Amino acid sequence: MAKQDGITVKKDENFSEWYTQVILKADLIDYSKVSGCLVFKPNSYSLWEEAQSYFDKKIKKDGVKNVYFPLLIPEKLLTKESEHIEGFSPEVAWVTHTGDTKLSERLAIRPTSETIMYDSYSKWIRSWKDLPLRYNQWCSVVRWEFKNPVPFLRTREFLWQEGHTVFATQEESKKESHKILEFYTDLFEKLYAVPMLKGMKSEKEKFAGADYSLSVETILPNGKAIQGATSHGLGQNFSKPFNIKFLDKNEKSQYAWQNSWGFSTRSLGIMLAVHGDEKGIVLPPKIAPNKIVIVPILFTKTKDEVLKVSKELAKTLKKYIPIHDDREDYSAGWKFNEWELKGIPIRIELGPKDIEKKHVVLVRRDTNEKKFVKMSDLDKEISSTLTDIQNNLFDKAKLFLDNSIGEADSISNLKKLVNDKKIGKVNWCGSVECEGNIKEKTGAKSLNSEFNKVGKGKCFACESNSKFVTYFGKSY
Amino acid sequence: MAKQDGITVKKDENFSEWYTQVILKADLIDYSKVSGCLVFKPNSYSLWEEAQSYFDKKIKKDGVKNVYFPLLIPEKLLTKESEHIEGFSPEVAWVTHTGDTKLSERLAIRPTSETIMYDSYSKWIRSWKDLPLRYNQWCSVVRWEFKNPVPFLRTREFLWQEGHTVFATQEESKKESHKILEFYTDLFEKLYAVPMLKGMKSEKEKFAGADYSLSVETILPNGKAIQGATSHGLGQNFSKPFNIKFLDKNEKSQYAWQNSWGFSTRSLGIMLAVHGDEKGIVLPPKIAPNKIVIVPILFTKTKDEVLKVSKELAKTLKKYIPIHDDREDYSAGWKFNEWELKGIPIRIELGPKDIEKKHVVLVRRDTNEKKFVKMSDLDKEISSTLTDIQNNLFDKAKLFLDNSIGEADSISNLKKLVNDKKIGKVNWCGSVECEGNIKEKTGAKSLNSEFNKVGKGKCFACESNSKFVTYFGKSY
Repeated sequence: MAKQDGITVKKDENFSEWYTQVILKADLIDYSKVSGCLVFKPNSYSLWEEAQSYFDKKIKKDGVKNVYFPLLIPEKLLTKESEHIEGFSPEVAWVTHTGDTKLSERLAIRPTSETIMYDSYSKWIRSWKDLPLRYNQWCSVVRWEFKNPVPFLRTREFLWQEGHTVFATQEESKKESHKILEFYTDLFEKLYAVPMLKGMKSEKEKFAGADYSLSVETILPNGKAIQGATSHGLGQNFSKPFNIKFLDKNEKSQYAWQNSWGFSTRSLGIMLAVHGDEKGIVLPPKIAPNKIVIVPILFTKTKDEVLKVSKELAKTLKKYIPIHDDREDYSAGWKFNEWELKGIPIRIELGPKDIEKKHVVLVRRDTNEKKFVKMSDLDKEISSTLTDIQNNLFDKAKLFLDNSIGEADSISNLKKLVNDKKIGKVNWCGSVECEGNIKEKTGAKSLNSEFNKVGKGKCFACESNSKFVTYFGKSY
Repeated sequence: MAKQDGITVKKDENFSEWYTQVILKADLIDYSKVSGCLVFKPNSYSLWEEAQSYFDKKIKKDGVKNVYFPLLIPEKLLTKESEHIEGFSPEVAWVTHTGDTKLSERLAIRPTSETIMYDSYSKWIRSWKDLPLRYNQWCSVVRWEFKNPVPFLRTREFLWQEGHTVFATQEESKKESHKILEFYTDLFEKLYAVPMLKGMKSEKEKFAGADYSLSVETILPNGKAIQGATSHGLGQNFSKPFNIKFLDKNEKSQYAWQNSWGFSTRSLGIMLAVHGDEKGIVLPPKIAPNKIVIVPILFTKTKDEVLKVSKELAKTLKKYIPIHDDREDYSAGWKFNEWELKGIPIRIELGPKDIEKKHVVLVRRDTNEKKFVKMSDLDKEISSTLTDIQNNLFDKAKLFLDNSIGEADSISNLKKLVNDKKIGKVNWCGSVECEGNIKEKTGAKSLNSEFNKVGKGKCFACESNSKFVTYFGKSY
């Protein structure tokens, strides 16, 4: 038997090393020969499938339809909206040849699909009857960043969904951007058990080409803030260059109002970083593909009897999609470590004595709490324990987030907070220049500004009046 | 109201024009600014989602796990297996620049993922305990063909699944290649209602780098044969250059045996081409996202009453995922045409007189048969009619396929058959040279050779002894 590979560093002592070890040892990801492009192994791709299924149901129920647009975007299309291309051009991967032939026009691998989708939208939308048009696609995108890649959190290719919707009025567009942000909040808080700060991005940090961007943000255990998902109000910034017009009910031609919104496999990294511990990853029960693992304790004499009962148990508990670990060439201890490393929410141990006493041992992954449960109570106990684990993970993360936010009334206070691995909450003017100055002096950028709140008094960082209540932090 | 856009050509008079019209007018696909790369609109993407869900369940139940490998493959990796790269290199799209920077090594957009996956497999596989390893991914691939693009059937980017599996023995590998072919046959025959010819590809037509390729093939209404899906036995052709070795139970190092297998969005085109008619597409009930459409017949006086009943009906029949077409600015006739064009299997009409008589009008899309059905019998009648439609579509297609196969005992006979839009069944030697000669003289290539059959006597086309019973046809 090979040596078992546990986690060799503490999460709170060396977060990056801990994170990389956990991701690799829980067999989630592997590196490929292309720097920054990672392989999603079954253990992580199955998490993505769960997240897709959860979110896809939500948006379909709300009337959104799925589509698929081409991967490759002609250079002329990509550059049609000037702020948009300025934001993306340094990171675009360009196809210049096919076979031995040089292309007459370069093709970009989609860094995001506004431009290719809106070129089609301009053909499809004619009348108010065609609106709202609400399409989404699940695909991969490529953005050739040069910062160090971090599994899930910063990769050159990632998987995501991008919703692209069109409305007749600004009001409908605004309403949807907020609704989608609620969907993202629900996804993070209910499925991933990760609490989020909701708000509006600053002028400086909004999406390239948007009127405004809404986001959900949170904090990682290393004190770095991170954006979870975004919902953009694009205004008429794309409908004008792309000529997306419709005849309204009065037969008047109008430019449409547009939104785009997305979340990506980065969200998995956030979840794993937030909940993991010294033993490995910890999966919130709702996203865990297997909610429980059953480990029969095998001794030569009683093996057959125990296996019979544990197999039966696996059948009875089918709805929890159990792993029944009946391997005979691994010890029980090895198995415990393996499934802890891989984050299975509940472990059920079952030996010959347990069978005699008609109970099992139930172990929670989040608290390590161990208890005996009567066979007859088991289904009920598992069900309530899974709910408990889901809630407990969220509550712990919420406490950490709450404790990580401090108020700052000056640049030096903010600097102290972020050096202390915290997020600063400030009254702020919102200007691009002021944000540049803050970044230079503290290393922090704005995360987002709270909805329905107005900054009080002067800006914490400059002479202007404050307009927003804003979170600042060092971030990914 | 705009003029309604029906199909203006007959399927049996001008198939290609009919096909293009049907695909565009049923709102399945749109062209994009990149030639050969098409947009999957909701009406076609939803079909792909149904096919994915059907096949994904099947392979997961069989133990296959989903993964995701990078889109981009370094040139050095892609060229590692010589026959493989020879087959694909003329069609590869190359990324040479990112932002303004020239890459030191070109990156290929995956035309298929053997090379990038097997580079990882060589790291992951160490022992017989790691086998079998059976992974699959759903993704898009790019092959820059220069023939005229045809929606679904021939596009430069398409969506597919690619399964890549590894075994300790040749026998297991062979067994799986046949099992997967059965899965594909089931997919086509049971979901798409399209009958298939199963068999082995010839030396000349097998996959670049495979020991052998199995396929399912069928015929389109224009007499062109088409490949539906393939299952390849790769032997040790990749495990040797990629160094995929394992220690067997006797601690001896061995090269692994590998398979790859795939089907793509082309399959949707086959289904649509086979079943469609002068009125539009015809969806087999099992794949139709909406099995029925309910059209209330609205007159000013009785409108409210009729809408109330039809709404109630839509609720009762929820399991058939009905479209309830209550639009008031379109006539009933317009709606009938629209849903016929879009292939909804069953239409339910409901007017004030029907309500009085406690029945509805039920219309089958496949036969246009119209009948009155008592409200109380409706659920049962819909259920059995859907089964009938599914079977009827398959039977019609099977009859067409059977009638399209003729036996040939000479090159000139084969030529006559293929010019008559048929497939030729022949006793054949199987050699690459002989196939080249046949192709030159008849325009036909081999589709596949029947399993468990041996050719009788001399080859139909040359002096050698025949070995196979083989299908030949002009093909896509």
